[in-house]
Amino acid sequence: MIYELYYWPGIQGRGEFVRLALEEAAVEYLDVARLPKRDGMGVAAMMRLMAGAETAKPMFAPPFLKHGEVVIGQTANILHYLGPRLGLAPRAETERLWAHQLQLTIADLVNEVHDTHHPIATTLYYEEQKAPAVKRAADFRKNRLPKFLDYFEQVLNANAGRGNYMVGGRLSYVDLSVFQLLEGLRYGFPRAMSQLEPGYPGLIALHDRIAVRPRIAAYLQSKRRIAFNEDGIFRRYPELDR
Amino acid sequence: MIYELYYWPGIQGRGEFVRLALEEAAVEYLDVARLPKRDGMGVAAMMRLMAGAETAKPMFAPPFLKHGEVVIGQTANILHYLGPRLGLAPRAETERLWAHQLQLTIADLVNEVHDTHHPIATTLYYEEQKAPAVKRAADFRKNRLPKFLDYFEQVLNANAGRGNYMVGGRLSYVDLSVFQLLEGLRYGFPRAMSQLEPGYPGLIALHDRIAVRPRIAAYLQSKRRIAFNEDGIFRRYPELDR
Repeated sequence: MIYELYYWPGIQGRGEFVRLALEEAAVEYLDVARLPKRDGMGVAAMMRLMAGAETAKPMFAPPFLKHGEVVIGQTANILHYLGPRLGLAPRAETERLWAHQLQLTIADLVNEVHDTHHPIATTLYYEEQKAPAVKRAADFRKNRLPKFLDYFEQVLNANAGRGNYMVGGRLSYVDLSVFQLLEGLRYGFPRAMSQLEPGYPGLIALHDRIAVRPRIAAYLQSKRRIAFNEDGIFRRYPELDR
Repeated sequence: MIYELYYWPGIQGRGEFVRLALEEAAVEYLDVARLPKRDGMGVAAMMRLMAGAETAKPMFAPPFLKHGEVVIGQTANILHYLGPRLGLAPRAETERLWAHQLQLTIADLVNEVHDTHHPIATTLYYEEQKAPAVKRAADFRKNRLPKFLDYFEQVLNANAGRGNYMVGGRLSYVDLSVFQLLEGLRYGFPRAMSQLEPGYPGLIALHDRIAVRPRIAAYLQSKRRIAFNEDGIFRRYPELDR
């Protein structure tokens, strides 16, 4: 049964965490909102399914995944569902919940990244909230980002010697998400990251191992990988990085 | 096996969503950080477990739950684990994930409530970020809060006629969380809520049915229920509600 991913077509955003898992697993999937309207796809198809008339399960926001009759929303929840099916999660319940817990903490960090450029309102442009954004970003770089990175490095170290993955003894979607997180942070905060990275050798080594996995490397070179841009969650605004 | 809840002792906060499930299920549990240090409990015991030396699974933040050897963090993840064990979640996997998805969306709303009074930095006092807080709260009341409440009312209506619960045909932790959400919103935004509530008859009726459930009613009257206060997530600052 083919997987259908529904996410905004122009950005990596939260959908990218799901894409990386699907790409690493090399399963067939449709990136529905990026496909032609004439084939019944596109953003209009996404909005129809989101409204819930077709499923009795309305979605609050993209991304969501359709797999046969199942429709699942919330990025970490999608990965929680996909993990065992793609061979990218541990089998035991408590280990699966541990992986999910880490993914939820990654999601918390992603939310905080978003709020560095939108601290007041998602309905306003960045330019309309630049002054508070500069303040929030300064706190993010100084306090929040190191706190999260400290934590993830600690988790990695607590699991060392078993292949140096985040969870258990083999690759999981959490490792792929750590890769994406570091990619995004390097894009959005190059100065801050160049200063911070020496403190996180484990995470950087994990990132580098993921980047050269054959399927991930091929994906990153493909047209399927959208470039980072200033409509996404990770944005490069120099004033938020100094 | 007794459940041990770890959360800050002076506030309802995110821990309250877990407490309500434990109380409705009438299982024995320890609210560890609120118990005496002389018995090996208290905040110090929480901080020790959080640091992870005892479990190889460090926690990023409270709340977390200990159940035998299992330690689980992230509020929605705790409820995802507890739900089937307390008889407060559907049995089928996809229905459990649906309940979890709704809980994650509740968590998103709770995060946005938090950021109405702390839009710039959790390391600063509210008084140091009052001006941006007033702006963020105005957007929250006008745009974000109605968007979330519209969604939850829609979910309830899509499941109508099966007992009028959020998920399936019986009470789940999601219903208890909707109750808590409305309690908190009424505390923090009494003016906004008095204007909005007529638009959400389903959610209000659900709230009122939860409030009179015998175990919940007894809990709300007990000393175990901490009063809302201005250290918690839902805070009553009049300037954020006008």
